[in-house]
Amino acid sequence: MFGVTILGNNSALPAHDRHPTAQVVTMSDHLFLIDCGEGTQIQMNAYKIRRSRINHIFISHLHGDHYFGLPGLITSYGLLDRIHDLHLYAPAPLKTILDLQLSMSGTELPYPLHFHALEEEDELINEEKFSVNCFKVFHRIDCWGFLFREKRNPRKINGEQTTKYQVPITYFEKLKHGEDYIADNGERISNELLTIPNKPSKSYAFCADTVYTESLADHVKNVDMLYHEATYLKDKEAKAISRFHSTSVQAAALARLACVKQLLIGHFSSKYETLDEFLTEAQEIFPNTQLALEGQTYLV
Amino acid sequence: MFGVTILGNNSALPAHDRHPTAQVVTMSDHLFLIDCGEGTQIQMNAYKIRRSRINHIFISHLHGDHYFGLPGLITSYGLLDRIHDLHLYAPAPLKTILDLQLSMSGTELPYPLHFHALEEEDELINEEKFSVNCFKVFHRIDCWGFLFREKRNPRKINGEQTTKYQVPITYFEKLKHGEDYIADNGERISNELLTIPNKPSKSYAFCADTVYTESLADHVKNVDMLYHEATYLKDKEAKAISRFHSTSVQAAALARLACVKQLLIGHFSSKYETLDEFLTEAQEIFPNTQLALEGQTYLV
Repeated sequence: MFGVTILGNNSALPAHDRHPTAQVVTMSDHLFLIDCGEGTQIQMNAYKIRRSRINHIFISHLHGDHYFGLPGLITSYGLLDRIHDLHLYAPAPLKTILDLQLSMSGTELPYPLHFHALEEEDELINEEKFSVNCFKVFHRIDCWGFLFREKRNPRKINGEQTTKYQVPITYFEKLKHGEDYIADNGERISNELLTIPNKPSKSYAFCADTVYTESLADHVKNVDMLYHEATYLKDKEAKAISRFHSTSVQAAALARLACVKQLLIGHFSSKYETLDEFLTEAQEIFPNTQLALEGQTYLV
Repeated sequence: MFGVTILGNNSALPAHDRHPTAQVVTMSDHLFLIDCGEGTQIQMNAYKIRRSRINHIFISHLHGDHYFGLPGLITSYGLLDRIHDLHLYAPAPLKTILDLQLSMSGTELPYPLHFHALEEEDELINEEKFSVNCFKVFHRIDCWGFLFREKRNPRKINGEQTTKYQVPITYFEKLKHGEDYIADNGERISNELLTIPNKPSKSYAFCADTVYTESLADHVKNVDMLYHEATYLKDKEAKAISRFHSTSVQAAALARLACVKQLLIGHFSSKYETLDEFLTEAQEIFPNTQLALEGQTYLV
């Protein structure tokens, strides 16, 4: 399963039973947390997120609605006797804040917390089955988007056929990458006979808090799912620009420009009690749009 | 009304739908917040606390479960266009943490935030109708209790009688303090004729996180309501001592020793899914005990 579970979809402060930003990405059997607004650990309880399985946390920027839940989560991991490594990717000053909070409370974490400062556009993780990159977005303060990519082999083994042709297991990796099999007697068995096409690798981009800019399209080109903030409806475009935020229509315009497959919009202003109009406005520009609703999981 | 509304009654981390410590004291038409665990502003929404009326916040100590909700609350006040003064009483390092968080997020609060460092046992507020004092309690780190006292005049004006005897309004304050009225012609009208007894002044003590110690009894002697933590049941007394916490029975013993009128117990460990046994154990020692339950208001 490659999906995104929303724990918070509101901007700035909790209101109308909506919470500040947090979402869990499930990819290649790993769980990743993006942003951690106040109350994230309570939302994790409510939506039965297996928090112990999260080993990587990404914080887009240091506005409180994106990280005020993090000190609590980190402390709770300690109280729950976590021992395995936790990797935290965030703007550098967060380390100073956390170190101060931990030292003032006399807390020694029982697990290794590895802090990775976001400083340039880079590959943050490159594992066998997935990668995560960060890219700059444009907000009032230093702010980062994240791109999650599966790495699937192009072909999958056809077990029946590899048995029939007695292909040794040591050859399977080559087959998955499309090579033919050359038997000991020199006979060549075509790859197409021994394998079947794999599902294509998928990708998810999280665009954090940002003003609308076409330059982001390069970073999120062709992704299977794009999360783009939509703090305001289209009539508040001037306000959106002045606050370095986006509107429903701008989020949809970027999705169209970047030729993504699906758009997820969130980070709704507390001014709006209901969200239907966000969806209507965005779908006029980009029909395959969904609202990021708390407790919902969206398949990439 | 003089009462205490519980917003969080759990220790350490949110669990079993219980939240970390926070409570609102209503006294003399003022609202005071004691401690501000993660999610306090969400609990304020849930229980319809008029947060704009809170002008004084007291933080007992810098374990996260007592203040991780504070940066969010302070920021939200700004977003909600608060302009009136907010007074914060807390251990000194909290100022460094908050200043860093505000500066890293580029936040300038639109209201004056006055930080008062807790350094010695002292009177923190002394207004016409109430006072608030702090006293040291005994936890793993620097930790403070708070004592709220009403200041009622001993007597109330009997309007019918003061009209009958034509007592000028300028004389009322003296009457409230028990003086007789001397008319212009020299006639003395007895205070008892012109006034009625007022309700006695009441008091509430919050004992924060503390190991059991008889020395606290002096600070909370005869209060109308004592909040004392009861993190564990009595069979975990050794653990309580090692963690500088108290048991149900120890909280009750202090209430009895200090001759308080009512006891409220809270800060329950997440190990306990249900709380009935806390009440049973405490009431064996001090019958007038209540559990601090979230959303409930307890009259002092």
